[in-house]
Amino acid sequence: MIDFSDLTQREWQHLYHRFEDILEHPGDYRDALRGQTLASLFYEPSTRTRLSFEAAMQRLGGGVFGFSDPMASSVAKGETLKDTVIMVTGYSDAMVMRHPCEGAALAASLFSARPVINAGDGCHCHPTQTLTDLAAITRLFGGVDGLRIGLCGDLKYGRTIHSLLTALCRFGGVKVTLVSVPELALPAYAKRACDAAGIQVAEEPDLRSAIGDLDILYMTRVQRERFADPAEYERLKDRVILTPDILSGARKDMRIMHPLPRAGEIDMEVDRDPRAVYFEQARLGMVIRMALLLEMCRLPSFTPAYIRDDTESGRHTNSGRTPSQAVLRCPNLSCITHKEPYLPLPAGDGVCRYCDSSLT
Amino acid sequence: MIDFSDLTQREWQHLYHRFEDILEHPGDYRDALRGQTLASLFYEPSTRTRLSFEAAMQRLGGGVFGFSDPMASSVAKGETLKDTVIMVTGYSDAMVMRHPCEGAALAASLFSARPVINAGDGCHCHPTQTLTDLAAITRLFGGVDGLRIGLCGDLKYGRTIHSLLTALCRFGGVKVTLVSVPELALPAYAKRACDAAGIQVAEEPDLRSAIGDLDILYMTRVQRERFADPAEYERLKDRVILTPDILSGARKDMRIMHPLPRAGEIDMEVDRDPRAVYFEQARLGMVIRMALLLEMCRLPSFTPAYIRDDTESGRHTNSGRTPSQAVLRCPNLSCITHKEPYLPLPAGDGVCRYCDSSLT
Amino acid sequence: MIDFSDLTQREWQHLYHRFEDILEHPGDYRDALRGQTLASLFYEPSTRTRLSFEAAMQRLGGGVFGFSDPMASSVAKGETLKDTVIMVTGYSDAMVMRHPCEGAALAASLFSARPVINAGDGCHCHPTQTLTDLAAITRLFGGVDGLRIGLCGDLKYGRTIHSLLTALCRFGGVKVTLVSVPELALPAYAKRACDAAGIQVAEEPDLRSAIGDLDILYMTRVQRERFADPAEYERLKDRVILTPDILSGARKDMRIMHPLPRAGEIDMEVDRDPRAVYFEQARLGMVIRMALLLEMCRLPSFTPAYIRDDTESGRHTNSGRTPSQAVLRCPNLSCITHKEPYLPLPAGDGVCRYCDSSLT
Repeated sequence: MIDFSDLTQREWQHLYHRFEDILEHPGDYRDALRGQTLASLFYEPSTRTRLSFEAAMQRLGGGVFGFSDPMASSVAKGETLKDTVIMVTGYSDAMVMRHPCEGAALAASLFSARPVINAGDGCHCHPTQTLTDLAAITRLFGGVDGLRIGLCGDLKYGRTIHSLLTALCRFGGVKVTLVSVPELALPAYAKRACDAAGIQVAEEPDLRSAIGDLDILYMTRVQRERFADPAEYERLKDRVILTPDILSGARKDMRIMHPLPRAGEIDMEVDRDPRAVYFEQARLGMVIRMALLLEMCRLPSFTPAYIRDDTESGRHTNSGRTPSQAVLRCPNLSCITHKEPYLPLPAGDGVCRYCDSSLT
Repeated sequence: MIDFSDLTQREWQHLYHRFEDILEHPGDYRDALRGQTLASLFYEPSTRTRLSFEAAMQRLGGGVFGFSDPMASSVAKGETLKDTVIMVTGYSDAMVMRHPCEGAALAASLFSARPVINAGDGCHCHPTQTLTDLAAITRLFGGVDGLRIGLCGDLKYGRTIHSLLTALCRFGGVKVTLVSVPELALPAYAKRACDAAGIQVAEEPDLRSAIGDLDILYMTRVQRERFADPAEYERLKDRVILTPDILSGARKDMRIMHPLPRAGEIDMEVDRDPRAVYFEQARLGMVIRMALLLEMCRLPSFTPAYIRDDTESGRHTNSGRTPSQAVLRCPNLSCITHKEPYLPLPAGDGVCRYCDSSLT
Repeated sequence: MIDFSDLTQREWQHLYHRFEDILEHPGDYRDALRGQTLASLFYEPSTRTRLSFEAAMQRLGGGVFGFSDPMASSVAKGETLKDTVIMVTGYSDAMVMRHPCEGAALAASLFSARPVINAGDGCHCHPTQTLTDLAAITRLFGGVDGLRIGLCGDLKYGRTIHSLLTALCRFGGVKVTLVSVPELALPAYAKRACDAAGIQVAEEPDLRSAIGDLDILYMTRVQRERFADPAEYERLKDRVILTPDILSGARKDMRIMHPLPRAGEIDMEVDRDPRAVYFEQARLGMVIRMALLLEMCRLPSFTPAYIRDDTESGRHTNSGRTPSQAVLRCPNLSCITHKEPYLPLPAGDGVCRYCDSSLT
């Protein structure tokens, strides 16, 4: 589970039905993974994601081991990702990994005999957040088709927004309203992808004007550091902050979502409004992770790619060459291939198979 | 469970009976909380308290997740206590919290749909230590009524001593002997509270003179830093240190207690004496925490106060005002209201409802 | 379980049979330690060992609590090892400890009413690594007797090598080939011990010449810092690095072992070779730890030595004396007796009973 696109629509539906069944019959699952273990490898801190996976595994009766800060572990002493992953794969039934480098989870999956769940690889993917969003939308609205969804905040850099948009492209007749300041507008390529998938896209710079039509308002964090000029930030930020006053223009059955943690973009007074479902969304995120762990831990073991694909991961590697001899390198310096040089080459159809950066 | 006073005497007795039953039939409880989870939020380190809660939950078959040092977690990135608590409440059946600010556990309880157990909020309360003390005394003596208890060490600043005294006021005919150097004597208000509750209080500056009459000698840590003059500390400390020599003046059926960790106030030679029960006291502390977790995790969920009490926690908040506009502030700068300014006002009957500081 | 020598050959065989049974019937063990707890006290970081114990306990249905970095815990505030151990012994069914001082695990065992498992005490012992090695050899070859085992790398300082050699002395007709640069040769006393036990020892400076005869090649890490002259390291290191080229001279049924983590002494290209079993060895290490935990957690509680052996641990202690008055001190400054001065004297038959250093 490296990216949401790894799931077919049929697999997603199967997962969602499991999620509903857990919500309705929680008592049936408290022994489901008894005696099984989840390895939790957090190469950078992430309280929310880590705690939701730990709670999910424990609610299924399983155990969790791992590290939440690699500085305290010998991993910091320079062991390769490969060796750590192969060790852990021998101890666990599934592995969840957060890593600062893009492509780290895919790299890990090459060496693992058990499923790897990506809990965030740099700025690249965070598929269980997308699962959370879709599960919450489906649960609250009975489905995704035909909804009008407002996306508000940082649409330029926000990983959550890009993943959600990609996932929404699978569903029919979704209408999207983009609410952002110009500095943080959705990139042109993402807009084209929506067009190609038949998603109607509207743009609206002011949340107050946009809010009246929406079924869902999906808010995201705006980071001050994104602005070259702090004064510009101060001037614009009020257009993308949700207050009780702005909320008064919304429909009674609208729902407010947010991936959390928030900064100041949702006024705390809004929390008591019945339309605020972001805390419930987080709780449902734990439940969809329970469903995912259940499927993952029950898969039979497989031969890892590094043994299976002798040709690909062996002969065509950069390992053993000096950098100048390397036949191909990913231009993204945060790509895991730069930190772990023994990895098989990033070759793909013009994009790095680890981090999806263009290779030309 | 913010303060020991949250328990009625009847609830205490119920809890104690559960504690005895766990001691007598431990095998009956190993599945009691299977599939349930405890969130363990330690905003400052505390090995003993944390480990005793973790062990207690696991011995009931449940799981524990959380953090033991917030620096390694994104909590350090500035998320509010409110948002962290609401997240965690969605993942867990109960929550245990240690925090450096007074009133933090009460503040957390306003946002939680599940029980919050205070594992220490600054210098304010540490109710599970008091539960430990009472459970150990009751177990060892069959009851609390009528015992003569010596309290020795730092009676001025020691949170444990103050909580224990308050709890002892519930029982009949307890006699207390205070053993301390003048610098660390019990505050006058605490003495008056004992008088009002009918507790006989005697004072005795030298442990050697006091020890012969006691049923229980409750020792506490004396911190060198409490003394302005180090020479004064050196001159006085021997009067409050328990050695085998001093112990030879005690009755054979006296028992020595200590909340631990100790500094040097109990000579290690004493540990082998059958009257030393402080290690057994710590073990019983884990068992009373098992009893507490059992009751807490079985409670049904409730609507958190921040949603339920719209008036109180909404309109009367300091949130949205600049500091100069704030209508009321707690004078205690370690009170949680200073760190989390959105909290409902500290108004109460003249004392802060978070940290019990006088508001005038 | 402080040192491998604590096990009789009969106990080892019993443990090995349990290990085989767990491998063959894993489903029978998922509830074996339900409601029991393992205290995991890591006074220095060690990811591999810690994670293998945590996974082992959880796969038996038990829970794990403790700390992985004492800086974050109040242990760092200066509590004695004694007090920490007695506390933890009251909360747990067994205890696993890693400590930077030699003899720490033995010291801990004096105060514990439950079994203490040594997970590494300084440069002294690491018995569960030796258990791992023997279990893996026995599993892969059906027994240890008569095997020709090549030991390669740092034979001078490597704790793993010394422990393994000592353990091999129990078996019949083992033949050992030592492969190392002169700077890292096996100490003379260790060679004499092999001779005394009837182990045939050959020496061979070059791995290429040695490899053809071996049943097992046991590689270990060579640390650059061991060499006074870095140029010397560069000149010699290639003789003890395993590459596919050198491996081509080995028998098809040879097996390559390594305690891990590795530095550069095994080329990653070797990992795909079916003779590479070091990752499988690590996995079997978790399984032998499951067998060990099962035996340990099922033992009845006992009276700790500090209470039982009044004479030994009481009267003859250094405690209460100034250093100049101490009757006997271990000359090894990394011995636990220097950090915890209240410990009973190190007296033994001329060697320190904590760290085995010579006392004269």
